Amino acid sequence: MAPERAASRGSALGLLVRTESRPGVLHQLTGVIAHLGGDITWVVILGGGERVNSVFFEIRGLPTLAPLIEELRALPAVIDVTEEQTHRRVFGKRVIIMGGGAQVGQVAVGAVAEADRHNLRGERISVDTIPLVGESALAEAVLSASRLPRARVLVLAGALMGGEIEAAVRKVRERGLVVITLNMAGSVPGAADLVVTDPIQAGVMAVMAIAETARFDVSKLRKRIY
Amino acid sequence: MAPERAASRGSALGLLVRTESRPGVLHQLTGVIAHLGGDITWVVILGGGERVNSVFFEIRGLPTLAPLIEELRALPAVIDVTEEQTHRRVFGKRVIIMGGGAQVGQVAVGAVAEADRHNLRGERISVDTIPLVGESALAEAVLSASRLPRARVLVLAGALMGGEIEAAVRKVRERGLVVITLNMAGSVPGAADLVVTDPIQAGVMAVMAIAETARFDVSKLRKRIY
Repeated sequence: MAPERAASRGSALGLLVRTESRPGVLHQLTGVIAHLGGDITWVVILGGGERVNSVFFEIRGLPTLAPLIEELRALPAVIDVTEEQTHRRVFGKRVIIMGGGAQVGQVAVGAVAEADRHNLRGERISVDTIPLVGESALAEAVLSASRLPRARVLVLAGALMGGEIEAAVRKVRERGLVVITLNMAGSVPGAADLVVTDPIQAGVMAVMAIAETARFDVSKLRKRIY
Repeated sequence: MAPERAASRGSALGLLVRTESRPGVLHQLTGVIAHLGGDITWVVILGGGERVNSVFFEIRGLPTLAPLIEELRALPAVIDVTEEQTHRRVFGKRVIIMGGGAQVGQVAVGAVAEADRHNLRGERISVDTIPLVGESALAEAVLSASRLPRARVLVLAGALMGGEIEAAVRKVRERGLVVITLNMAGSVPGAADLVVTDPIQAGVMAVMAIAETARFDVSKLRKRIY
């Protein structure tokens, strides 16, 4: 038995499992993991095709992965099992930017440039965007953002946002997401943690708000407008 | 019993389950879903806190969700269950951009503006980025990109990429990811589907390559340089 890296509470290990694609397979996999005492901190099903699926797990709490890999390989539905890097380690914390295409692009320029500077110093911050139009579509996307893995801060970039979007902003802030908006028309800026006029600056501040390499505490700036 | 929307093969339904946070809970949840014949097409564990976790499922193959919600609520570890929109419906297909901060930001401007145009016509395309430096870090991120849910096209934006990154590009292309690179030094452009000199154009073409509202077939352009 080759020695394996320890999967302590602090560092999850990644496991990619290719299986036959049918209902109940995930239940079999999680059964083996639970039986060995592994704590699944992240799991994603990647559509591999009609008959084969890939399931990616991040697991904590096991001293070694070797017995788990062996037991998984013994399941009839399992095709193969490989150890992989975790998404958390590779892609890190996420800034989510949504709204109008013109503004989202400029906020992204600021956020990407600032994330680059922090990632050079050992951080892992990624910048994810979606251009969207319409009150309902945006409100739904805001609510969904709080359910995205590793999402820490949301930037709303547009010219007019209110109504359902304002209600969604209040809800996701309760769930712990920091919300920054551009200085725009509508009721959304009144509901946000921070309002920033320049889109590049908004992107930079969003990254600073979640970077451990920055001295910038958004809670000290609440309700401030820049 | 209120009638529920049908969870056919074509349209998954989303379910947010808040549970006590401990090993084995996911196994219990998947057991109930498998027992009722539901096919889990996507699942993510959202760290809710020390003692409470939120697990988000997308499920197909059930005529209604009502019996499932009822059975899940009956589990001692379950705190509450709510029906939610699916990530696939909200955030759609993903363009992933990685490399140097200066170039990634400009590719994002092109991709976001183009995604905006397609999303206005009913598409859902999001643009996700990470600025990264170093051959190993980038090679690892390229490999991981093929394990990101809903990822369809990868844009490598930098001035020099080769070695391990080239090997990673060849591997993820085999897994079905389309790879576009800027016209740069190193061996990566030779391994990509498409090489584009202007970063805005690269972002636009990346979105066109995956938009069903665009007439642009990257397979017809393989090995072409723009």
